Amino acid sequence: MTGERRVSTDRLREFVTALLMAVGVKEAHASVTADRLIEADLRGRTGHGVIRVPSYVKRIKAGGINLEPDIQIRHETPTSALVDGDNGLGQVVMTRATELAIDKAKMSGLAMVGTVHSNHAGAAGVYTAMALRHDLASMYFAIASTNGLAPWGGRERLLGTNPIAASFPAGEEIPFQLDIATTVASHGSISVKEQAGEPMPEGWVIDNNGDPITDPRKVDEGFLVPIGGYKGSGLNFMIGVLAGVMTGAAFGRDVVNFRTDSTSPTNTGQSIIVMRPDLFMSLEEYKEEMDRQLREFRASESMTEQPVRLPGERAAELEVEQRRLGIPLADSLIDELNGLAENLGLAARLT
Amino acid sequence: MTGERRVSTDRLREFVTALLMAVGVKEAHASVTADRLIEADLRGRTGHGVIRVPSYVKRIKAGGINLEPDIQIRHETPTSALVDGDNGLGQVVMTRATELAIDKAKMSGLAMVGTVHSNHAGAAGVYTAMALRHDLASMYFAIASTNGLAPWGGRERLLGTNPIAASFPAGEEIPFQLDIATTVASHGSISVKEQAGEPMPEGWVIDNNGDPITDPRKVDEGFLVPIGGYKGSGLNFMIGVLAGVMTGAAFGRDVVNFRTDSTSPTNTGQSIIVMRPDLFMSLEEYKEEMDRQLREFRASESMTEQPVRLPGERAAELEVEQRRLGIPLADSLIDELNGLAENLGLAARLT
Repeated sequence: MTGERRVSTDRLREFVTALLMAVGVKEAHASVTADRLIEADLRGRTGHGVIRVPSYVKRIKAGGINLEPDIQIRHETPTSALVDGDNGLGQVVMTRATELAIDKAKMSGLAMVGTVHSNHAGAAGVYTAMALRHDLASMYFAIASTNGLAPWGGRERLLGTNPIAASFPAGEEIPFQLDIATTVASHGSISVKEQAGEPMPEGWVIDNNGDPITDPRKVDEGFLVPIGGYKGSGLNFMIGVLAGVMTGAAFGRDVVNFRTDSTSPTNTGQSIIVMRPDLFMSLEEYKEEMDRQLREFRASESMTEQPVRLPGERAAELEVEQRRLGIPLADSLIDELNGLAENLGLAARLT
Repeated sequence: MTGERRVSTDRLREFVTALLMAVGVKEAHASVTADRLIEADLRGRTGHGVIRVPSYVKRIKAGGINLEPDIQIRHETPTSALVDGDNGLGQVVMTRATELAIDKAKMSGLAMVGTVHSNHAGAAGVYTAMALRHDLASMYFAIASTNGLAPWGGRERLLGTNPIAASFPAGEEIPFQLDIATTVASHGSISVKEQAGEPMPEGWVIDNNGDPITDPRKVDEGFLVPIGGYKGSGLNFMIGVLAGVMTGAAFGRDVVNFRTDSTSPTNTGQSIIVMRPDLFMSLEEYKEEMDRQLREFRASESMTEQPVRLPGERAAELEVEQRRLGIPLADSLIDELNGLAENLGLAARLT
């Protein structure tokens, strides 16, 4: 284990924005991308945070991202729109889609906006969190940028870790915020086992015959396991339809492996459904009921000495702490980012 | 194992409708309820099919269902409505909600309709299948009629098997139709193990300390396990918010146990989001792409000699077969239903 240092949110945003601008990203796009990456770090989703900057830079330098995308809104109605990202940065495209869905949901009560020709957009929960800041509920669906599992009972990698996120406003309580992959383990958690030289638990990865693989170095011989077996496999496919088939984005065999191919347009797809939480009662009544339920669940008897926690609590607490103390980054990541800055002729360094 | 006999769909519908009318259900409500129950049987969801009739009759005789409900539409907008079921039969209330959502989605592209003061509405997938018959996509969420699990890490039964269903139209292929509980095992599959005198696999039920319970007779000492642990627990809570907190229906501690309490109004909640699958492209383009993906998945390499199957295939095949040959009912169920008919003074019998 290397050490880590805390870097303030403002400093990190400035540095990441400068790095992206140094490879040709326009300022507005660089700052939005930095915001979404840092929001992922703030929520503890480090795998989708600034740790991604080196691979984004690599892709940009290889010509795999359109730096002057003509982001167009297509098929627009009061409740829906498709955002064609023209192979721009995923965070930029999906932020535009989320803002549009928020505006439409405020007017129409409910709205769905999809993306096509988008790219890896990072942590699912940062988009539903955007809606939450407007007192709106939302559900987000994305097709992962690499395939790692087969449909249940199959032997071909046609599905990814396809995540779902959902956020619902509360009154005084910490809101409920879900952000999960539909597989038991993520590529990130498997890497952690590999680096620690530890076996994976059974149930994370299966081989060609459905038998468990526990050696993390043999992951590529097998398939990630969806949550609940055929159930999670079905949810995963459903997410693919909402984020891909309906939008015209790549799904199944058409998914481009973002990790090994830095040049082909990925045609990544995402979609978000935003809704007013007060569709069926006043906002005050909704918030009161939501608060009451959150309190009852959180005060219910726990299996341990720690209180029962609901999705979103740890992220909310981490965000408060990290906004105050800074975001802890591994020394190795700081070195890598500083090396990038040096190579790009920037004077700025993270310290 | 007892034997079974096949009963034609028409005969069964007539018989169930007559049974419900014999305990005071008005004809329109009895026939809708019979339709939804039989659709569950046709799709292989026997646990939510006509096997439920005896418990419905028991509840009706005990006064637990309002036979003259004043079903009202509240908070209506072009994209949303709340259906107040006035403690009517769940199938009647949820059918009304689904029809309303279908109409609204046709006009507005996207619609969400919730229910409050509803009751157990049977198989989740029969409602999304209704939307499918109009070439519409949909997602359905329901709060189960009994609590069987704790929030992840907790020790109080505040959650049920809360199901999600989703259907998406296709062109020539069998459409994708998901219908799953968010727990690994259902009460039904546990009963099967109990009747067979077999232990349950680890991972179905846990005790107060999170350790596995494998004796199906000890289920009530433990908690059902959500799919993917904390992930499924989060999905389960999300469904509760969509079907309960937002609609004003019972959730958490307020859920009435439908199995042990036949008189208290349950205030069950459901919700459905219906959407045009052609929000982002023409219906022809959507269907072509959906068919292509379904074909590629179904033709992909299988782990077994059987082809890869996607959710909805077995249900579709069963429905075709059973509409032709009749629905197989266990002799014991036929005896029970005939006994009910006799007690209610009906001449009709299933043979």
